[in-house]
Amino acid sequence: MFITFEGGEGSGKSTVIRELAKRIEEAGREVVVTREPGGTPISEKIRDVILDRSSGEMDARTEALLYAASRRQHVVEKIIPALKEGKVVISDRYLDSSLAYQGMARGLGMAEVYELNMFATGGLEPDLTLFFDLAPEEGMERIEANPNREINRLDLEGMPFHQKVRLGFETLARENPHRIVKIDASKPLEEVISAAWAVVGNRLRYR
Amino acid sequence: MFITFEGGEGSGKSTVIRELAKRIEEAGREVVVTREPGGTPISEKIRDVILDRSSGEMDARTEALLYAASRRQHVVEKIIPALKEGKVVISDRYLDSSLAYQGMARGLGMAEVYELNMFATGGLEPDLTLFFDLAPEEGMERIEANPNREINRLDLEGMPFHQKVRLGFETLARENPHRIVKIDASKPLEEVISAAWAVVGNRLRYR
Repeated sequence: MFITFEGGEGSGKSTVIRELAKRIEEAGREVVVTREPGGTPISEKIRDVILDRSSGEMDARTEALLYAASRRQHVVEKIIPALKEGKVVISDRYLDSSLAYQGMARGLGMAEVYELNMFATGGLEPDLTLFFDLAPEEGMERIEANPNREINRLDLEGMPFHQKVRLGFETLARENPHRIVKIDASKPLEEVISAAWAVVGNRLRYR
Repeated sequence: MFITFEGGEGSGKSTVIRELAKRIEEAGREVVVTREPGGTPISEKIRDVILDRSSGEMDARTEALLYAASRRQHVVEKIIPALKEGKVVISDRYLDSSLAYQGMARGLGMAEVYELNMFATGGLEPDLTLFFDLAPEEGMERIEANPNREINRLDLEGMPFHQKVRLGFETLARENPHRIVKIDASKPLEEVISAAWAVVGNRLRYR
């Protein structure tokens, strides 16, 4: 089973993923937790190029192609092998992030970025996607309040960019109601975990 | 005017490019010499990921996407601005290399790699392409005889791979007779330079 977590910066995905992975393991399933961009040595090298703050003048299509390249390696080297072994794979970001960030917010078009990603993923879609919805203002406040989080190139984008990202995710959630479940990430952590676990635990029972 | 040089490893492109650039400048035109993968700071970072010998297990589609990403940045940041200023741009490798290496030799399909590169280049094709044709055996001999040349990941491929690359270039030359001119790179350097200059000098006169 392939589960992805999506949402804007500072929406608390990583914390919730750690807790859910623990619960899935307690339920007797092996879990692989991974993230994008990254997840394999080659993908991490590509991640460094993408997020490098000195790469400021990167063209939007270059960025979309790099995310797709990183994703390809991630799918082939890590996600598909784990799924074949019957493991639950949880990825912090996947395809929908490219559609929301590059397709919608950078204005490349969601259809064109989807096309590009079909080349990259060979058509592998998640079984379940949790979209952590949060007002971008609140997400940025949380990031700035966290002294341990490194600030990357995307964090430096202005608020209109992050609003478009959210609009992108909302559009995707509306278009894929069976795959994407929206989680209200403005709630206290314990409530967010409960809501996420209600969805994931339920799906696991039937897989 | 946008001129590209294509061909297998060790076909002597770089040496001839240097000489031709000199002659074009003597003819009174400004020249920008560049290369792929690379050509801009971001593209050079991507080049490092592609050619890194420790990246041995790179998937063929990852590789194609990285070349396309590097090319995108190169086109937007360097090639198009120089062409707009009326300069002659010479690139050591461009689109055709992806079609021959990833499309043909890696077996991804030339049509699919072309499609991907239309996303990357926005449709920018060279005005003229010189295909340096050489038996792969001879190309590899030249590389091994040159102590200054660094050996990269592609040099380590076997002979059947390099034969397929040549077949790819030959197919492209046949399909694009008005754009691609084949140069016999097995000839002595002086003859190769003369043959290349005959083509380039002639085209320059009419641009």
